[in-house]
Amino acid sequence: MSLPAVHRDPSLPDRVTIYEVGARDGLQNESGVIPLETKLELVQRLTAAGLPIVEATSFVHPKWVPQLADAGDLVARLDLHGATPYPVLVPNERGLDRALDAGVTHVAIFGSATETFAQKNLNSTYEAQFAMFEPVVRRALEAGVQVRAYLSMCFGDPWEGEVVIDRVVAAGKRLLDMGAYELSLGDTIGVGTAHHVEALLDAFTAAGVATDRLAMHFHDTYGQALTNTYAALRKGVTTFDASAGGLGGCPYAKSATGNLATEDLVWMLDGLGIAHGVDLPALAQTSAWIAQHLGRPSPSAVVRALTAG
Amino acid sequence: MSLPAVHRDPSLPDRVTIYEVGARDGLQNESGVIPLETKLELVQRLTAAGLPIVEATSFVHPKWVPQLADAGDLVARLDLHGATPYPVLVPNERGLDRALDAGVTHVAIFGSATETFAQKNLNSTYEAQFAMFEPVVRRALEAGVQVRAYLSMCFGDPWEGEVVIDRVVAAGKRLLDMGAYELSLGDTIGVGTAHHVEALLDAFTAAGVATDRLAMHFHDTYGQALTNTYAALRKGVTTFDASAGGLGGCPYAKSATGNLATEDLVWMLDGLGIAHGVDLPALAQTSAWIAQHLGRPSPSAVVRALTAG
Repeated sequence: MSLPAVHRDPSLPDRVTIYEVGARDGLQNESGVIPLETKLELVQRLTAAGLPIVEATSFVHPKWVPQLADAGDLVARLDLHGATPYPVLVPNERGLDRALDAGVTHVAIFGSATETFAQKNLNSTYEAQFAMFEPVVRRALEAGVQVRAYLSMCFGDPWEGEVVIDRVVAAGKRLLDMGAYELSLGDTIGVGTAHHVEALLDAFTAAGVATDRLAMHFHDTYGQALTNTYAALRKGVTTFDASAGGLGGCPYAKSATGNLATEDLVWMLDGLGIAHGVDLPALAQTSAWIAQHLGRPSPSAVVRALTAG
Repeated sequence: MSLPAVHRDPSLPDRVTIYEVGARDGLQNESGVIPLETKLELVQRLTAAGLPIVEATSFVHPKWVPQLADAGDLVARLDLHGATPYPVLVPNERGLDRALDAGVTHVAIFGSATETFAQKNLNSTYEAQFAMFEPVVRRALEAGVQVRAYLSMCFGDPWEGEVVIDRVVAAGKRLLDMGAYELSLGDTIGVGTAHHVEALLDAFTAAGVATDRLAMHFHDTYGQALTNTYAALRKGVTTFDASAGGLGGCPYAKSATGNLATEDLVWMLDGLGIAHGVDLPALAQTSAWIAQHLGRPSPSAVVRALTAG
């Protein structure tokens, strides 16, 4: 097996946390029904491959995402008090109730930087989403549960076009100020490019948000996900969302194809000499296995290269 | 159609030259026979889409690359004295003879930074290749023909592993000193990562080679091609090889999949506000068209996104 030569750039962080979203952001977009046992095996194999945090599922209403209607059953099978946290997405208080009943330790909320996506995806409005999230975050924190906040459409929106950076910063700050420990900035439709990433991160810094409270969540719709990750890494970001084998997308956003593939990120980090804790061959085998279950090849270049032949 | 928002980084070059290699590096790896008329249409459409230089074919012996046995017939149909140069690859003096007979204005030679690849691909040795290229370059220059030099395996070699940077610099300087106007540094098997690129470029600078005589030629085997391009752009490189729709690879190098897709590069350059002269929709349509001829989808994310539905 090939491995990249290590050329360490001392100006880059020496360690990165990969927040694995394939089991949730990936599988929620699959049209077919995936058996519970397959989902469980995916989460367990991702954990065994060394991913430090594995988002497991979403407690969204089954009417909206029937693919994840078995969220409670899946979580009941996981070791919720082991070394690897298994966050679950909760869209609202009803979802939080189910998550708390299931005994989770980490939840994630999912906000929108734009008005149109707040209406279409959250069935809310830009402004009303904050009132919706406030009791979710408050009650989660009261229950001792950690809350992560996603903010989607941070670069462009399929209906509104470019999203103004100040708007993204304002929305993100409100989610952090509610009590989220981390804000994941999503390029939901993948239109961002490297200096746009830098400008957005600079704006958060100027607004007093510490970079260690930010994560980046890139989609590879236009092939920019890894380059944008590299640009964010140069700005000091150390948490990156990625999905095993590049699974995923967003069913409500036109043109939103898969997430940054975890393996392609790991390859770059290995070459840069940046620690991440992931066993690349084990991860690539996991992605090849789930791709076979889904009946199509992984979009990850590394998965294809390492598992070919 | 989506377009990236423009966020210009004033520290980056304001213009880039895309050296299009799809018609040669791409089609030479196709197993089926592609009709001459299709090749001609590809070159003409790439030209019409604004690519400033379009490598058209290779005068390699048909025994080695039968796919390009019609090189002479193709070149005879091109306008060799228009605004767009059509370089052709010449492996040796015999290839140069054919190219000169065809009346070309630009040729490219193809060297190896490693011993094993020099033996396997050039049927020569590392040292003997320079003696082979010397009369090719000299006679081309005497005929008023410009010579570009490729150097392959600049980052890793499937048989030898990591390639020492000093070796790459030494080989590259010999090709430039012979009279090549430009040296294209190839990551033939795609194993390089961003700081490796920076270290290699720094070494060329330290050896007195001006960055404007260097081009980068990345393959996307491990998903690193665009990120490595961005790293080189940050170092001041302004010429990048790319292939329409990500066509290509290298038949003699294990794991060498396609080149950086021209469209994915163009998307990034558009976002960075860097001029390139290419009409992206026209180019993506061309890549979708040739992908249909080849019977498989383009590996370019941008081509898939722009031509979906």
